[in-house]
Amino acid sequence: MLDKTSDIAIAAESWLAEFEAALVKPDDGALQKLFHPDSYWRDALALSWTLQTVNGRDDVLQALKALAFKTAPSSFAIAPDRAAPRKVMRAGTDCIEAIFNFETRAGRGNGIIRLIPDASDGNRPKAWTLLTALEELKGFEEQLGSSRPRGAAHSRDFRGPNWLDLRNASSDYSTRDPTVLIVGGGQAGLAIAARLKQLQVDTLIVDRWPRIGDNWRKRYHALTLHNQVQVNHLPYMPFPPNWPTYIPKDKLANWFESYVDAMELNFWTSTEFESGSYGEKEGRWTVTLRRNGEPRLMHPRHVVLATGVSGIPNIPEISGLKDFAGKVVHSSRYDDGENWAGKRALVIGTGNSGHDIAQDLHSSGADVTLVQRSSTLITNIEPSAQLAYSAYNEGTLEDNDLIAASMPVVLARRSHVMLTEQSKQLDQKLLEGLERVGFKLDFGEGGTGWQFKYLSRGGGYYFNVGCSDLVVSGAVKLKQFADIDTFVAAGARLKSGEIVPADLIVLATGYRPQEELVRKLFGDAMAKRVGPIWGFGDGQELRNMYARTPQPGLWFIAGSLAQCRINSKYLALQIKAIEEGLIPRLAPEATEAAVA
Amino acid sequence: MLDKTSDIAIAAESWLAEFEAALVKPDDGALQKLFHPDSYWRDALALSWTLQTVNGRDDVLQALKALAFKTAPSSFAIAPDRAAPRKVMRAGTDCIEAIFNFETRAGRGNGIIRLIPDASDGNRPKAWTLLTALEELKGFEEQLGSSRPRGAAHSRDFRGPNWLDLRNASSDYSTRDPTVLIVGGGQAGLAIAARLKQLQVDTLIVDRWPRIGDNWRKRYHALTLHNQVQVNHLPYMPFPPNWPTYIPKDKLANWFESYVDAMELNFWTSTEFESGSYGEKEGRWTVTLRRNGEPRLMHPRHVVLATGVSGIPNIPEISGLKDFAGKVVHSSRYDDGENWAGKRALVIGTGNSGHDIAQDLHSSGADVTLVQRSSTLITNIEPSAQLAYSAYNEGTLEDNDLIAASMPVVLARRSHVMLTEQSKQLDQKLLEGLERVGFKLDFGEGGTGWQFKYLSRGGGYYFNVGCSDLVVSGAVKLKQFADIDTFVAAGARLKSGEIVPADLIVLATGYRPQEELVRKLFGDAMAKRVGPIWGFGDGQELRNMYARTPQPGLWFIAGSLAQCRINSKYLALQIKAIEEGLIPRLAPEATEAAVA
Repeated sequence: MLDKTSDIAIAAESWLAEFEAALVKPDDGALQKLFHPDSYWRDALALSWTLQTVNGRDDVLQALKALAFKTAPSSFAIAPDRAAPRKVMRAGTDCIEAIFNFETRAGRGNGIIRLIPDASDGNRPKAWTLLTALEELKGFEEQLGSSRPRGAAHSRDFRGPNWLDLRNASSDYSTRDPTVLIVGGGQAGLAIAARLKQLQVDTLIVDRWPRIGDNWRKRYHALTLHNQVQVNHLPYMPFPPNWPTYIPKDKLANWFESYVDAMELNFWTSTEFESGSYGEKEGRWTVTLRRNGEPRLMHPRHVVLATGVSGIPNIPEISGLKDFAGKVVHSSRYDDGENWAGKRALVIGTGNSGHDIAQDLHSSGADVTLVQRSSTLITNIEPSAQLAYSAYNEGTLEDNDLIAASMPVVLARRSHVMLTEQSKQLDQKLLEGLERVGFKLDFGEGGTGWQFKYLSRGGGYYFNVGCSDLVVSGAVKLKQFADIDTFVAAGARLKSGEIVPADLIVLATGYRPQEELVRKLFGDAMAKRVGPIWGFGDGQELRNMYARTPQPGLWFIAGSLAQCRINSKYLALQIKAIEEGLIPRLAPEATEAAVA
Repeated sequence: MLDKTSDIAIAAESWLAEFEAALVKPDDGALQKLFHPDSYWRDALALSWTLQTVNGRDDVLQALKALAFKTAPSSFAIAPDRAAPRKVMRAGTDCIEAIFNFETRAGRGNGIIRLIPDASDGNRPKAWTLLTALEELKGFEEQLGSSRPRGAAHSRDFRGPNWLDLRNASSDYSTRDPTVLIVGGGQAGLAIAARLKQLQVDTLIVDRWPRIGDNWRKRYHALTLHNQVQVNHLPYMPFPPNWPTYIPKDKLANWFESYVDAMELNFWTSTEFESGSYGEKEGRWTVTLRRNGEPRLMHPRHVVLATGVSGIPNIPEISGLKDFAGKVVHSSRYDDGENWAGKRALVIGTGNSGHDIAQDLHSSGADVTLVQRSSTLITNIEPSAQLAYSAYNEGTLEDNDLIAASMPVVLARRSHVMLTEQSKQLDQKLLEGLERVGFKLDFGEGGTGWQFKYLSRGGGYYFNVGCSDLVVSGAVKLKQFADIDTFVAAGARLKSGEIVPADLIVLATGYRPQEELVRKLFGDAMAKRVGPIWGFGDGQELRNMYARTPQPGLWFIAGSLAQCRINSKYLALQIKAIEEGLIPRLAPEATEAAVA
């Protein structure tokens, strides 16, 4: 295809110009000529007001024409202050990739166009993937940089409330309710709160822990993040350049404290969210909080559940476990191996938690047996587990986030199949060793690797930082759960009759689906209305994530630090759009479903 | 002169190439041809291992040849990742300005060359100003970005100390002494500590206040910074883009707390530095600290006084003040106007503190009289007071800091004369009003404005945020100190016989020179050896600031947030160079002076 930088830019510019012109033509022909048969369109709010992916030219064209008519996108142009149009390989395909800006009636957006040659049409460059993403709402732009708040009020009104007085009053909520109540003060809650603050939406975070950052601080002693710092920045306040590659839990926890203050977020610690109900007529929630033990009623217009994929511990029914004489604890309540030197531990579950806890116990001098319930994906933390993030090693965070948002899930799966193959090669020695000791390996659904295990079920893999090596060497023993008959007072009794003695059993058995949290907080009817949360199901987007749900005013945000950073932007813009009357509280499809 | 961007770049590149070649030539001729008769050279460590400015071609050439011989500068090239060569106006002169990189035997540096036409030589572009600045020491580069620490140790050693354990141990100093002890935990101390940490020099900050940031937090209620956020970043951790233009004191104080944690600085609060003496033979100090009341001896190799220009209050001898029946307080101990509603206050001193305190008292309902002791420079906070920082409104912080470092003081004065003239015009209405009520105005020494009043004596000006308007309107009364005969129990008795009654007298009378802090902590002999601190005297550099002093192992850092950010880098590099044996503890000139 084209080689010279200028040719590449011209190809991208031409495509955008023709695209803009074709959008306003009544007939299909002009638009069809621009898209490859195997093309994809992802929209993040700009035209659809939701997060949606459409696969295949026919469906793409149909959706585009319908939504373009309503939103009037225009002024498509290569973004001058971002990575220039270039040739790259994505999901194994060479393409021209260009970042562009555009406008709609209600906002300004940016996007990415990828062009590949259409062999059936003289190798003319056509759209392979298109992303149209909302960047800001006209009239409600964020106050950043040169449009930052002045603070002049503090300079001139000497006896008026100063900054600290205003912060304290803002966090008080004794005489007002927040517009948005966020449940959970980890990275998900912090990211959405910071974005909403930037859009001047009155927001309160409530969190059960006594200190900001405890969701990390209270984890086990040796925990660090398992992917690299440059991927994990929070919005508006990137980690400094001297921070370690793998951020230790306490350092991250303290940064969360700094973040709340620097971003001027309202955050109530030691506050439980007990229950809530929605008033259709008023368009408000009635929620019951318990703050430092004291009840408080609130009436936010929106509730965002940001408790993460790791909310309600999954305690499986295990035969005989009630007869076990020793200590039983779910991985989420596991504290420290310190007390178990010289003791014997069974760790049931071979995901990340199971392995980390087994390693912690082993390092503390315990005799550890890992019990495998289902096959697990194992990969070394370096280089394999970081392959998925290689794009973040260069270029700006903003560009890389847009690139991440631009990949339709079909192509993301394709990418990860290739990365998983590559990882298999790199991890060969380790994987052979694990197989030798009977560990059951998998490589994800359809070989899509750990990323899609995470996106589908929130776990089922382990980034090896040493425990797998202990399993291979036998220093940590391995048993298959299927070989266990039942549990007895002394430990586990295998089908062979052998007793595996234990003083401690750790259930590293994951978490319940978030639907159960909805049921617990809001009742069966609402859980039924909302449906499954997380995972793709048969669709192209994570279900009920970062967008309007079938329950007006109820939202969900979860995932990695990167997902929270990227998607909090779009979630915040939707809430703002609703508050400013630009879109309805219920998405059209949901309205139709509700009416049906 | 040259107009096209490419011509400008070529002119700069040619000059650098000829400069590099001429430096190694035995005769003067080649080098002389490159410099304008009216030229200046500033070196920040790279060739001279200190901060020095040389004025005039002859002296520049002589110094260059001597120092180039020792340090072997080479590889001069336009810096590809910084602002490209361009035409600009500096200090009223049009010039070509280019940022370049280079190397020396011991380090890597960057600099700025400014070229102007030499009318006596066919308008050939020649060096007008040259900056050569050390950026890093070979073998001791900072670990940033892709060379950041990995944190892998935390990932793999599950029972070893984790990050928090290591931070606590690092701050403990129960079994070791810091290499560098920093006295004062405001922006000066924080900046130098962060830079030293990056160079892996074991550093401890001690500060008398109970909480990090108290040096700002404990100031009066309405205080905000008086210049804009983009100028005031601390090293490595710029303020987020959503921060207000004028940062409120509590917000800044809290950022300091975050900074200490994020930069992993060792900081002891509630710790007084009582005294110290230097052991020549051991090359170490013996210092006495008092931490939470408990004494502690320490033996650092270096002591950095970072208590700022506002260290020891200046309480002038004032006739009859001991007879005054009301309350007397120095501005540094002034708390809040709240208690003075309906009372009468005399505020003696018309610098920034005096005006701010007068405005605070007035806003609290007190009857306020400002008493002027000497002429004062008054300028409106906007736009006039910000004119000096206009360069920071665009371009990168690093480029702007290098530009600031590159201006010899002679040209900086020239710049400020022009800015002061411009300010006079902009402030005309206010200044006329002040003169009408008898306020005595000045415009700095030789009309160099507020910046040089600050650099010479640390005060003597006020950025009007409202108090001058109150003085003009008479809402705040004005008296001249010269009209006061003496103080009496009731207040001030004027020479006319009139009594000006008061309940409160605030002495906004500034601070003692830092030499007195040296005397107080270290004794007369050391104060004599060190000499005057701050101000230019007859020289081109701030005396005893950011560089080796006549006392081995004793350093000073003070000034604005910008000065601390810029100069902490050079101060840290000198300490590191000494610790690594690259340069001696005492600068050569000082050694000569000591031996003489």
